Amino acid sequence: MRPETLTDPADPRLDPYARMRERDLVGRAGRFVVEGEVTLRLLLGPRSRFRAESVLLAPERLPGLAREADDCPAPVYLADKPVMSAVTGFPIHRGVLAIGLRGEAPAPEALVPPEGPALVLGLAGLTNHDNVGAAFRNAAAFGADAVLLDAASCDPLYRKAIRVSAGAALITPFARLQAGADWLALADRLRLDALALSPGAGEELGAAPLPARALLLLGTEGPGLEAALLGRARSLRIPMAGDFDSLNVATAAGIALHAVARAQGRLRGFNTER
Amino acid sequence: MRPETLTDPADPRLDPYARMRERDLVGRAGRFVVEGEVTLRLLLGPRSRFRAESVLLAPERLPGLAREADDCPAPVYLADKPVMSAVTGFPIHRGVLAIGLRGEAPAPEALVPPEGPALVLGLAGLTNHDNVGAAFRNAAAFGADAVLLDAASCDPLYRKAIRVSAGAALITPFARLQAGADWLALADRLRLDALALSPGAGEELGAAPLPARALLLLGTEGPGLEAALLGRARSLRIPMAGDFDSLNVATAAGIALHAVARAQGRLRGFNTER
Repeated sequence: MRPETLTDPADPRLDPYARMRERDLVGRAGRFVVEGEVTLRLLLGPRSRFRAESVLLAPERLPGLAREADDCPAPVYLADKPVMSAVTGFPIHRGVLAIGLRGEAPAPEALVPPEGPALVLGLAGLTNHDNVGAAFRNAAAFGADAVLLDAASCDPLYRKAIRVSAGAALITPFARLQAGADWLALADRLRLDALALSPGAGEELGAAPLPARALLLLGTEGPGLEAALLGRARSLRIPMAGDFDSLNVATAAGIALHAVARAQGRLRGFNTER
Repeated sequence: MRPETLTDPADPRLDPYARMRERDLVGRAGRFVVEGEVTLRLLLGPRSRFRAESVLLAPERLPGLAREADDCPAPVYLADKPVMSAVTGFPIHRGVLAIGLRGEAPAPEALVPPEGPALVLGLAGLTNHDNVGAAFRNAAAFGADAVLLDAASCDPLYRKAIRVSAGAALITPFARLQAGADWLALADRLRLDALALSPGAGEELGAAPLPARALLLLGTEGPGLEAALLGRARSLRIPMAGDFDSLNVATAAGIALHAVARAQGRLRGFNTER
């Protein structure tokens, strides 16, 4: 759309951008905020799972995003950085913002290919936005079909989670489980083999073949996955060295996703299975 | 040492804890700050590379750390959280702080085993404390012998870097290169085979055997390693899926460290090479 210049911080068209940090805490009723050029391109690009409601650019950022602005079906507003900062309530440095619309939440069944190879990441009780964002980034890098989150995990469309995901939260399909949903019953229903990652597991990642249809489950760094779940699932640990037995949960997800994606042959140009 | 209770925020023995955030920016002249129980145990434990100058605990944290306090050769101070907060200048929640002493900076040569298997992580131009901390955590998890940092990389003993490293920065030997030092000349001197990780490399990680003595080099996420370096080193990329070609630099380090550590047989209980 043809960009329109706004100069009044109180312009109602800027209201979704207002008081940004306070709204991070209380939620945005079906909207989310996208920051930065890379992430905006993903929101407006062909792989995006979401529609933009509007885009807000500092005028000096328009030349570099002219084609995206032209092709954007949503309104594109231009405002000087001081106006942007007055609206959001904190200094805006990069001058690239957008509001996305969540739309309908999909069911897990809608996201997992019904047959053939499948790689799904399941996040249980991840309440840290950095970890959820980083897990999405890894899921996108290794071509996971979807991410499933339990009811306790935090929102992948939280502003910081999107930023840490490098925009992966906008293109990697995800769905949320209902409170109390059973991961293994879900895996059965989706015809996925559950792999529960746990530092205490007996089987080591890489010691035995990995399934063609995998649901890779990770819990929080402290308590990890529930014992009841671990007792019923095939569980794997990432072997480490010495006595510093500590990996960040998103890093552990990255290492395991890499191993499963490689075993499934989904890595670009990777021809040599050893 | 027998703990001593301090009640005056202006007590000179508390001065190294004062104005903590301001001092994060200007530096601490040979000191660093440790926060939290896990990290304190590493500072005071047998694998620590550093001496504590003092420990500062909220009284309610003493029972859980009684043995560490007893064995600690440095003074242990007790202060209520409001006193701790008044000293540091921000609310102290966990009630566990310590000051460490940097000591003499080692030379790279002192940290790398002169023969036998070796795994060294080299960080070039990493200016983000989260990434440096996370890289140390991965280096410790996979048993790297040392981390080397170029002059442009940030300080692993910065308060946030230690925290993100889960204390790995206190136990993993590290050294800093002089400005302008050449990584490949250093690798030669240490008899290490340099492996430069780069998204544009022709060789894929896992497609060919990995060296028994490895210097794994990573650059920043944006520009990456210098072209001049990549042109002279064996360079590797982590294969990814589809067109989301983006891994966090510390996650990339984790995946590559895992692969090299596994090939070198340094992972605990990992018997099955496939």
